[in-house]
Amino acid sequence: MRNNKALLIAATGEDPEPYRAIFRERMPELVVHTDGEDYDPASVAYALCWKPRAGLLATLPNLDVIFSMGAGIDHIIADPQLPSRQPIVRLMHDKTREQMRDYVLHVVLHYYRQMDVAAAQQAKKQWEFLQIRDKSRLKVGLLGLGEMGSTAGKTLAALGFSVMGWSRSPKDIPGITSFSGADGLKAMAAEAHFLISILPATDDTIGILNRSLFETLPKGAIVVNLGRGNHLVTEDLLAALDSGHLGGATLDVFAPEPMPQDSPFWEHPLVRVTPHVGSDGNSDIVADAVIDNIRRVESGLPPSPVGDRARGY
Amino acid sequence: MRNNKALLIAATGEDPEPYRAIFRERMPELVVHTDGEDYDPASVAYALCWKPRAGLLATLPNLDVIFSMGAGIDHIIADPQLPSRQPIVRLMHDKTREQMRDYVLHVVLHYYRQMDVAAAQQAKKQWEFLQIRDKSRLKVGLLGLGEMGSTAGKTLAALGFSVMGWSRSPKDIPGITSFSGADGLKAMAAEAHFLISILPATDDTIGILNRSLFETLPKGAIVVNLGRGNHLVTEDLLAALDSGHLGGATLDVFAPEPMPQDSPFWEHPLVRVTPHVGSDGNSDIVADAVIDNIRRVESGLPPSPVGDRARGY
Ligand SMILES: NC(=O)c1ccc[n+]([C@@H]2O[C@H](COP(=O)([O-])OP(=O)(O)OC[C@H]3O[C@@H](n4cnc5c(N)ncnc54)[C@H](OP(=O)(O)O)[C@@H]3O)[C@@H](O)[C@H]2O)c1
Ligand SMILES: NC(=O)c1ccc[n+]([C@@H]2O[C@H](COP(=O)([O-])OP(=O)(O)OC[C@H]3O[C@@H](n4cnc5c(N)ncnc54)[C@H](OP(=O)(O)O)[C@@H]3O)[C@@H](O)[C@H]2O)c1
Repeated sequence: MRNNKALLIAATGEDPEPYRAIFRERMPELVVHTDGEDYDPASVAYALCWKPRAGLLATLPNLDVIFSMGAGIDHIIADPQLPSRQPIVRLMHDKTREQMRDYVLHVVLHYYRQMDVAAAQQAKKQWEFLQIRDKSRLKVGLLGLGEMGSTAGKTLAALGFSVMGWSRSPKDIPGITSFSGADGLKAMAAEAHFLISILPATDDTIGILNRSLFETLPKGAIVVNLGRGNHLVTEDLLAALDSGHLGGATLDVFAPEPMPQDSPFWEHPLVRVTPHVGSDGNSDIVADAVIDNIRRVESGLPPSPVGDRARGY
Repeated sequence: MRNNKALLIAATGEDPEPYRAIFRERMPELVVHTDGEDYDPASVAYALCWKPRAGLLATLPNLDVIFSMGAGIDHIIADPQLPSRQPIVRLMHDKTREQMRDYVLHVVLHYYRQMDVAAAQQAKKQWEFLQIRDKSRLKVGLLGLGEMGSTAGKTLAALGFSVMGWSRSPKDIPGITSFSGADGLKAMAAEAHFLISILPATDDTIGILNRSLFETLPKGAIVVNLGRGNHLVTEDLLAALDSGHLGGATLDVFAPEPMPQDSPFWEHPLVRVTPHVGSDGNSDIVADAVIDNIRRVESGLPPSPVGDRARGY
């Protein structure tokens, strides 16, 4: 490693200390700074970001690589002064893929096995047998078949669910029926008992979970948002739940986060809220992925995976 | 099929009509009777049973095969006048194994991903990140590694959990650490963050989920009963939950069923109740398995799988 190459932690709402401790242990030669402390901007070659302060990255003349603390790059390219030449490395790790897959498995099994109904029965001290539906007839529609969506989809298919997926480019993944384009979205939604979004937030996807899409879903369908909060049009979801058209929703991401106290989701009987825990870019996993990539870069290899600024993900 | 061979449906609390309809369609030559209606006892070669009325099977001089509507034979061998020469065929079907596996997956994912905590936070409008634990350190201990337990265990292992299993005879199942005997039970329990019973009810297992076993579990462990209600000592579970030693329980089977209105489980904040839905011996699946076995028997093959009366399962 060249001397004096530093990493700047530019993460809103994240405690930098656990990261520092891990870098100190696993890559002691790396100098680590945090936004707010005194450092030489010219020394910073790497920035590790979650919603970085707008304009901050533009102050770093020798910045080589931008690391996202999450799978998305939306929270970085939102900075209007973002310098343009650096690769933006998305967080990707076997563990984060597996965590998201486990969340998706859980939520599908939860509704498939009517655990919501069982809980309601328990609250009423009601004993009523719940017949198990034929799983192969339960169609799960995934929005997004990237690292996260495809991993979840393959396991759902292996467990016997009928799996469909929508992506920009058509896919050929065993066990997953591929859809793409606006027509593909409608066609998939018309069949989907579960609609699970694991999309990135881009100009094309913001607001995609809206009234028109909900109306296309079969009655009783379940909507799950694991992508970003701004995919969802709140009033449209509430209307579709309250009219009885949708059977329930599980939401993990919100705009803004933390979800405000006056959000109607907290108390809605058909909405399950989890606090952005679909996958956990904890400091261990993030540092692992960053160190791997710094080693790659220092040895002349490109970092991976790199987000596409033009596409927005 | 020989002429006049009839099947008697001897099932307490079960509607015989769906079975009749399916047999009529799929095996029209089979004569089907139900307990209570007028029939010639000498014509009955097959009995399809769930908690059959005591003494009923003894009235059938030409009974060849006894079919259980469930995986267990406990509800049949409980009959003190049970004739001794017939094989008792357990219900076993790819679908029932898969259903039980799915229930187990759901319950493990539910606690692993702290969905109980998330629900409690939602009720308090509290947004607090929930860190995902290292799954490979979460040990799942299965009581019973038969058709049900081994199927669930293999999938849990494939999903990255650390899986242990206890059975009468030691097992050699990839991904599952095998325990047996009284010492094995203690050794496994001492490590088990999840203790999941899918045992049959026998003289040796009734009351096995008791204080001494709970005390052996690590603090915060989760207890799941999917075997039979009489495995569990109710007061011992309540004491272990209320002392803070156990973290929660999910119960699917009870003694008696339906669970009485005054059961303390209905309202216990750490207990999830489901109405015996671990696997669903629905009429379709049961009739499928029975028809398969009648065809085997009529062509001279033994039925399968047959419970062992002496062992009690
Ligand atoms: N809740 C959480 O904790 C959590 C955790 C991780 C990630 N996420 C969210 O999940 C997103 C996806 O992560 P990932 O790693 O799977 O991303 P990825 O590998 O980049 O995959 C994105 C997928 O979305 C598809 N897509 C993008 N724009 C589209 C459009 N306009 N129309 C149709 N499909 C489109 C892509 O299609 P192509 O395959 O054709 O490119 C791709 O299949 C992240 O950006 C983040 O927002 C949330
Ligand atoms: N909740 C539900 O909806 C539901 C559905 C289906 C079944 N069940 C329950 O689950 C039970 C198991 O079903 P299954 O089909 O997996 O049965 P199985 O194939 O007969 O397996 C029973 C397992 O329990 C073990 N076992 C029995 N007695 C034992 C003892 N004294 N000590 C240690 N291990 C012992 C057996 O050990 P070996 O392998 O050494 O024989 C075997 O591994 C059923 O009897 C029923 O009670 C519940």
